[in-house]
Amino acid sequence: MRLDEIARALDCELRGAPDTEIVRVWPIETAAAGDLSFVANPRYRRYLSTTQASALIVAPDLDDLDVPTLRTTEPYLAFARALRLFYVAPPRQEGIHATAVIAGDAQIGAGASIGPHAVVEGGVRIGTDATIASGVTICHGAVIGDRFTAYPRVTVREAVRIGNDVILHAGAVIGSDGFGYVPSAAGVLEKIVQGGTVILGDEVEVGANATIDRATVGATVVGRGSKIDNLVQIGHGCEIGEFSVLAAQTGLAGSTRVGSWVQMGGQTGTTGHLTIGDLSRLAARTGVVSDIAPGSVVGGYPAVPIEAWRRSRVLLNKLGDVLRRLRRLEKALGADEDSAPSP
Amino acid sequence: MRLDEIARALDCELRGAPDTEIVRVWPIETAAAGDLSFVANPRYRRYLSTTQASALIVAPDLDDLDVPTLRTTEPYLAFARALRLFYVAPPRQEGIHATAVIAGDAQIGAGASIGPHAVVEGGVRIGTDATIASGVTICHGAVIGDRFTAYPRVTVREAVRIGNDVILHAGAVIGSDGFGYVPSAAGVLEKIVQGGTVILGDEVEVGANATIDRATVGATVVGRGSKIDNLVQIGHGCEIGEFSVLAAQTGLAGSTRVGSWVQMGGQTGTTGHLTIGDLSRLAARTGVVSDIAPGSVVGGYPAVPIEAWRRSRVLLNKLGDVLRRLRRLEKALGADEDSAPSP
Amino acid sequence: MRLDEIARALDCELRGAPDTEIVRVWPIETAAAGDLSFVANPRYRRYLSTTQASALIVAPDLDDLDVPTLRTTEPYLAFARALRLFYVAPPRQEGIHATAVIAGDAQIGAGASIGPHAVVEGGVRIGTDATIASGVTICHGAVIGDRFTAYPRVTVREAVRIGNDVILHAGAVIGSDGFGYVPSAAGVLEKIVQGGTVILGDEVEVGANATIDRATVGATVVGRGSKIDNLVQIGHGCEIGEFSVLAAQTGLAGSTRVGSWVQMGGQTGTTGHLTIGDLSRLAARTGVVSDIAPGSVVGGYPAVPIEAWRRSRVLLNKLGDVLRRLRRLEKALGADEDSAPSP
Repeated sequence: MRLDEIARALDCELRGAPDTEIVRVWPIETAAAGDLSFVANPRYRRYLSTTQASALIVAPDLDDLDVPTLRTTEPYLAFARALRLFYVAPPRQEGIHATAVIAGDAQIGAGASIGPHAVVEGGVRIGTDATIASGVTICHGAVIGDRFTAYPRVTVREAVRIGNDVILHAGAVIGSDGFGYVPSAAGVLEKIVQGGTVILGDEVEVGANATIDRATVGATVVGRGSKIDNLVQIGHGCEIGEFSVLAAQTGLAGSTRVGSWVQMGGQTGTTGHLTIGDLSRLAARTGVVSDIAPGSVVGGYPAVPIEAWRRSRVLLNKLGDVLRRLRRLEKALGADEDSAPSP
Repeated sequence: MRLDEIARALDCELRGAPDTEIVRVWPIETAAAGDLSFVANPRYRRYLSTTQASALIVAPDLDDLDVPTLRTTEPYLAFARALRLFYVAPPRQEGIHATAVIAGDAQIGAGASIGPHAVVEGGVRIGTDATIASGVTICHGAVIGDRFTAYPRVTVREAVRIGNDVILHAGAVIGSDGFGYVPSAAGVLEKIVQGGTVILGDEVEVGANATIDRATVGATVVGRGSKIDNLVQIGHGCEIGEFSVLAAQTGLAGSTRVGSWVQMGGQTGTTGHLTIGDLSRLAARTGVVSDIAPGSVVGGYPAVPIEAWRRSRVLLNKLGDVLRRLRRLEKALGADEDSAPSP
Repeated sequence: MRLDEIARALDCELRGAPDTEIVRVWPIETAAAGDLSFVANPRYRRYLSTTQASALIVAPDLDDLDVPTLRTTEPYLAFARALRLFYVAPPRQEGIHATAVIAGDAQIGAGASIGPHAVVEGGVRIGTDATIASGVTICHGAVIGDRFTAYPRVTVREAVRIGNDVILHAGAVIGSDGFGYVPSAAGVLEKIVQGGTVILGDEVEVGANATIDRATVGATVVGRGSKIDNLVQIGHGCEIGEFSVLAAQTGLAGSTRVGSWVQMGGQTGTTGHLTIGDLSRLAARTGVVSDIAPGSVVGGYPAVPIEAWRRSRVLLNKLGDVLRRLRRLEKALGADEDSAPSP
């Protein structure tokens, strides 16, 4: 693709040869001739003088370079869109495969692609242009918007409600039973029926083998545009706002409330029935046991401000030194204890 | 449903209008007219004066309220059962779907519902009234009791033994190979065949996408009534007692022994070949590296008594203060070190 | 099986009755008459005098025992191979099941066993002697070597490349989209297309419900002989060397580089864009936030040398004592602070 075509498609200013031929979009560290790359983060500027890329997406104010450049105030976004220009999607099967089992009263909009062995149960309603891969099951009464994408082996349980432009990756389970039991006098654990549901807003994406439990009553909610990574667990009755991002293997205990534009690092956990404010950011593996104020940046278990967490980790490694110095002082003062601990 | 009907069904004493019409069972914080709610935990009593609920399940000794009440010594249990009264299960397909593949020598009891594209391999025996959803695979020689429920895409590997009233949620894998390799002289990792199996007792419930590995020899065992949440991993050769509860994303390394009535918080882990005693309780994300005595309440990694864990967390945040005070003392004593660390 | 046959099969020296009949291979602690067991680790030698096993695999230099022995320099490896001698695999369906959906242009080598409802899409190439269980989906253009084993419900996404002798356990997902978004000026999160792929080397084994994301560009790579346990997450663009072992629920953030012969304990996590050197060993639940030198043995979060991590854990529990002694010194020096913290 010619660089001027790309510039137009990405709405960037072009500086340099418009007929530069681009064959691939690639990170700057390993880019080769024919590649379009980008620099957003200043620490990657060191590659500018040595890169083999044929063109670069950079900020408007960067000095002119030897290679042609595309100028934009958002180089990373333009790079992401350039990737899309060159992306070749696998072929899409048109229509409903003969081996799919679709209930007579299911309503499926125009333009659907439904793969082999998919199952759509009674009362389901799906919007237009759905892409449902092989082995997906949509259970009774689920209601799904337009441009739905479900990769192989997704399960959407009964009565779940899903917005437009939602993507569910392979093996994701939406609407599994919440985890609730009550000990009975008979000395057993009685299951609490999970009669609620799950609501996924528009543009939600759920990762491979992630699980989102249905509420006991009411609904577990994931708001518009929020992104849930692989192997994340969302407990019953959780509510997540808009455009929040939960990295892989994070787990939310029941009734956790997560605001909008929240970022949760991988393997984070919450103990439930608490609130994580809008725009807060949680380091990987944060353990949340009480409310997090909006805009907080936290880490550790229990979660504390990120600087405090980092400092405590450093200090922990100085503890042996603290003990040694303490003993020296005690000795100087003749205050040794018989039971003085040794490090 | 009339309140007197509900009182009879739940075996509660009714105080107030027997013809109160209940349409929904709902938590007290957000209950509305027509709702039946409950108060078990004293800290929810503050809602008693303001709730819009039409009736409440409460303890026998609570003062009379303005709204009708159902009296029981176990309000939470009664609430759970009330939920069941109002629960509407999705329709159940009767019989075996034409697309299911059932081996000629498989034995399936009366009353089975087997969904599209389910697979039951040779030599499998399943009791009465099984509900097996679409895309479930039961491998060779598995033996399963009565009233078995498997949600979509469950895999039960060969020779696994499952009791009565077991529920397996979507994507759960029972009997995958244990994780065992041995380095050989040839400089490769040789797989140790996993010739054992898994035994699930009566009333076991396994969450979505959870995995339970088969033993190398003998069996991985989950005892009667134990509940395994989503995305839990149970390694080969583990043994879990009765009515234990393992919250989401917990992982048991091989040969962990867990007693009965144990509660494990989410994201807990064990290093294997150790014993967790009956009735012990583990905080979320506990890391167990040695035996836990029966009845213990522990947290942290490595696990320590819960009070010690909480205290050490608090103290960790005071370390900067300790260092500062230590330096002040050293200065007062003229005992500064050249190499004194700075916080 | 006669013990002399076993000795020949395992290439061990036999001492004792060659016609000893062995019916089972079993660990020494619970071995019974008819069992073949082994002792590799010296701490199991205490069972030598009491075991009921009929024969034992032991090191060449061990004293003669009352029971017949098989002598080898690698008793554990011989035990693993003995297990294989007695292992009875479940029956293998020959050929391609009538309900499998195989694209016309897919190439599948001789000797394939393909189960019910499996799907092989267009352009896929699979080597000889594949065993593909029910409900597996191999997406467009994937290329797979010889002796491939996929358990039920595995998903291999488009264009993934897989070597020889690879085993994928039930529910594993290979090639799901990497987790990448960029905030746009419009105030939404734009998906970064994931146009790369996954490459699995020969002899790789991937556990049940584990997920390996495809790269944004290029490939996520798992090298020859590496073993990935259940519920592990491998982010986009990671590269793992040869014969590394990642225990259950470990998560690698994007672009993590793991060397060869690395051992990662369960629930370990990495923050991405870092390197873990060859032969390093990580304790369970290590949190890696910076490079790990080759051959390191580390633990903790952030990861520190294993001895330092163990010591800091011990010291943490002495913090209360430190504070108490510090206050005593301050008092002795008349250096009390009004604002002195209490433990």
